[in-house]
Amino acid sequence: MTTEKIPYKIYLSEDEMPQNWYNVRADMKNKPAPLLNPATGAPMTFEDLRSVFCDELIRQELDNNTRHIPIPQDIRDFYKMYRPSPLVRAYCLEEKLQTPAKIYYKFEGNNTSGSHKLNSAIAQAYYAKRQGLKGVTTETGAGQWGTALSMACSYLDLDCKVYMVKVSYEQKPFRREVMRTYGASVTPSPSMETEVGRKILAEHPGTSGSLGCAISEAVEAAGANPDYRYVLGSVLNQVMLHQSVIGLEAKAALDKYQVVPDIIIGCAGGGSNLGGLIAPFMGEKLRGEQDYQFIAVEPASCPSLTRGRFAYDFCDTGKVCPLAKMYTLGSGFMPSANHAGGLRYHGMSPILSQLYQDGYMKAISLEQTRVFQAAEEFARVEGILPAPESSHAICAAMDEAMKCKETGEEKTILFGLTGTGYFDMVAYEKFHNGEMADYIPTDAELEASFAALPKL
Amino acid sequence: MTTEKIPYKIYLSEDEMPQNWYNVRADMKNKPAPLLNPATGAPMTFEDLRSVFCDELIRQELDNNTRHIPIPQDIRDFYKMYRPSPLVRAYCLEEKLQTPAKIYYKFEGNNTSGSHKLNSAIAQAYYAKRQGLKGVTTETGAGQWGTALSMACSYLDLDCKVYMVKVSYEQKPFRREVMRTYGASVTPSPSMETEVGRKILAEHPGTSGSLGCAISEAVEAAGANPDYRYVLGSVLNQVMLHQSVIGLEAKAALDKYQVVPDIIIGCAGGGSNLGGLIAPFMGEKLRGEQDYQFIAVEPASCPSLTRGRFAYDFCDTGKVCPLAKMYTLGSGFMPSANHAGGLRYHGMSPILSQLYQDGYMKAISLEQTRVFQAAEEFARVEGILPAPESSHAICAAMDEAMKCKETGEEKTILFGLTGTGYFDMVAYEKFHNGEMADYIPTDAELEASFAALPKL
Repeated sequence: MTTEKIPYKIYLSEDEMPQNWYNVRADMKNKPAPLLNPATGAPMTFEDLRSVFCDELIRQELDNNTRHIPIPQDIRDFYKMYRPSPLVRAYCLEEKLQTPAKIYYKFEGNNTSGSHKLNSAIAQAYYAKRQGLKGVTTETGAGQWGTALSMACSYLDLDCKVYMVKVSYEQKPFRREVMRTYGASVTPSPSMETEVGRKILAEHPGTSGSLGCAISEAVEAAGANPDYRYVLGSVLNQVMLHQSVIGLEAKAALDKYQVVPDIIIGCAGGGSNLGGLIAPFMGEKLRGEQDYQFIAVEPASCPSLTRGRFAYDFCDTGKVCPLAKMYTLGSGFMPSANHAGGLRYHGMSPILSQLYQDGYMKAISLEQTRVFQAAEEFARVEGILPAPESSHAICAAMDEAMKCKETGEEKTILFGLTGTGYFDMVAYEKFHNGEMADYIPTDAELEASFAALPKL
Repeated sequence: MTTEKIPYKIYLSEDEMPQNWYNVRADMKNKPAPLLNPATGAPMTFEDLRSVFCDELIRQELDNNTRHIPIPQDIRDFYKMYRPSPLVRAYCLEEKLQTPAKIYYKFEGNNTSGSHKLNSAIAQAYYAKRQGLKGVTTETGAGQWGTALSMACSYLDLDCKVYMVKVSYEQKPFRREVMRTYGASVTPSPSMETEVGRKILAEHPGTSGSLGCAISEAVEAAGANPDYRYVLGSVLNQVMLHQSVIGLEAKAALDKYQVVPDIIIGCAGGGSNLGGLIAPFMGEKLRGEQDYQFIAVEPASCPSLTRGRFAYDFCDTGKVCPLAKMYTLGSGFMPSANHAGGLRYHGMSPILSQLYQDGYMKAISLEQTRVFQAAEEFARVEGILPAPESSHAICAAMDEAMKCKETGEEKTILFGLTGTGYFDMVAYEKFHNGEMADYIPTDAELEASFAALPKL
């Protein structure tokens, strides 16, 4: 390994960008379990899914065997507007920590959506457009996914209807305005526009909404119009597929300098970033070509992998979506107001859940005040102001680097820096003012939530 | 010129990054006029300036002859954290406009400060640190400069005291929190901490402050402590020097593909971005090697070049700073609440003023609603959400591209995209809601302001 010539940032040329997504399922011995129809308990078929998703995305969702799936030229052209994203050698952080570890991070925040979400947003919008659809619906909590989808739809001249959790709609007016800049219609959820929204408002007047409710509204709105489909920013197999571009680029950049990471770390909410970052490395591990240590980092307030059950569960609180087999805290679990909104999901990608179940990766959970400490330390030496979600990975990477300092090991650590925190300054302000609290659900709370898991 | 192989984004390798700043004054026949001591009317000497600026920066400020000034290795290392910045070929914008023009932009917004200001912030902080000083003071209006300086000082472990115009302090709490994240102390101005602040508060209780007042407070605070100096983000010759890195990188990237721009466009407030972008191109023009058309774009609400006087004037409203010969609207001119806060300055860089006076560049002014229309159109096709300041250049570039469409000319246009608009969503919201107004000062208003120009 030649470390001397490694620049601060490794960029690929456009020629070196991936031409195919990598489908890790092709290399999994134990495939992720199929989605089930909640009414019949039978696996969801292509036909079952057609009213919700567009056709090509269903094919990708159900395809457990094709290893490489070509990225259409139009999507590759869009990627060129903000990709390849830099792979950064964290020289300044290494020096600050005085660690012998070599730290790299793949930075996905240098686009206007502020995160990696754009990688799948453009793919989902593209296939919807190619099918002749008029628009798509979705939900957004923290707002990164909604912003990404707005950008993709604007580029393709596709309608974009976003149901934004009401509390976020009110507390994050700037996120809302970015989406409006990109021509999206943004509705606070619950709304009077859908049956499920009216029902919830009648039962809970004045509710500030939840992601589960917003999903239900978005799915209902898509179903009500044959020219619309519903799209989702995480959890699904298709999303992991699209996000593999993160890992493929990272691996190509490291390969240029013959660098092989020992540890690969990503934050985990629904799994879109982690699944994408580790995909090609996990493929090598599954095929027995190379060993890597993978670490999923989740908030202690929403510990799906570390404290959840591996079971079939609803993907949404409103129980209108199919059942997925995954690590879950129960679809009724209400995460506390953790500021990493993108990690407040009760479940986890079925692919990652299966890999975790099979022992291919480990998971840890972190409390948010520690995470913000790491975020601030990182920002001051590396310049980038990280999103709270991403900061979970930063904190874990710094912990691993400090372990190397103790043992003297020169491990190579790669982590995913999924996005920037420009729209999270309220959380940073609370942290600065000492007003940030940690919250860990009790065993009793989790048991109560598990009791509501569907019986199959 | 080979256009086929030009990628969406041209990156330089770290080896190709500039090793020297370019000092355009060395190639100017008519040098910018010296700063004058307001008490005596005599040119400010090295000794006169030592209580305000650190020594090396005074040398740079006064050096009209050294063409290339080495960038210290430590600054080059810091630059590597966020530079080289991409030179983008605006393929999507060209297609949207259906223009035969080739459009390029140098994007300086992909760092946490959100703008090009970091290029000079790190240089000024570095020289202060090297001189053994403890800290620096400055003012900030829109907040980009304050953020950049906070980042630079945090990196170098230097105290950073920012006087933030009170109205911005209150309306832009997120900007303030970013600065706090980087360890800066942020004080709303006018404050009770300085004599000038107390005086203004006594005379105008409840005032929401102004940039002029904040400058006066920052200068006073620096002067009161021998371990501190005052730093400024624009206007000064030293700032133009540091910002030449923008133009040097842009030129190196274009040279790689044998592209020669016909028109080079930048927004102009104090001139830091425009001066930096055009520097090496202007050098070629001054030396008679190549002709270029340069366009400075300013807001119609604050039209220093297009409607100002070329005269000696105070750099600040409080009249504590030296006199500079520049295009000015008068130091008492109060720009309306134009949302491009970074362009609300009554004067203009003495270097750019002299070049404009000598006919080397032209200037235009634009009204802000037109600018926001262009910003939104640009964001939708190019993905980047531009700052209001930068959007002045975008709008002018689009206008030039549309002229090409009429004439069929395949001109090559280069413009500076100085930063992102993540902290300007209040302005975008006003635009979306149709609540944004244009304002153009009347001739009578300007005449009244000119009447107060100092008599020398």
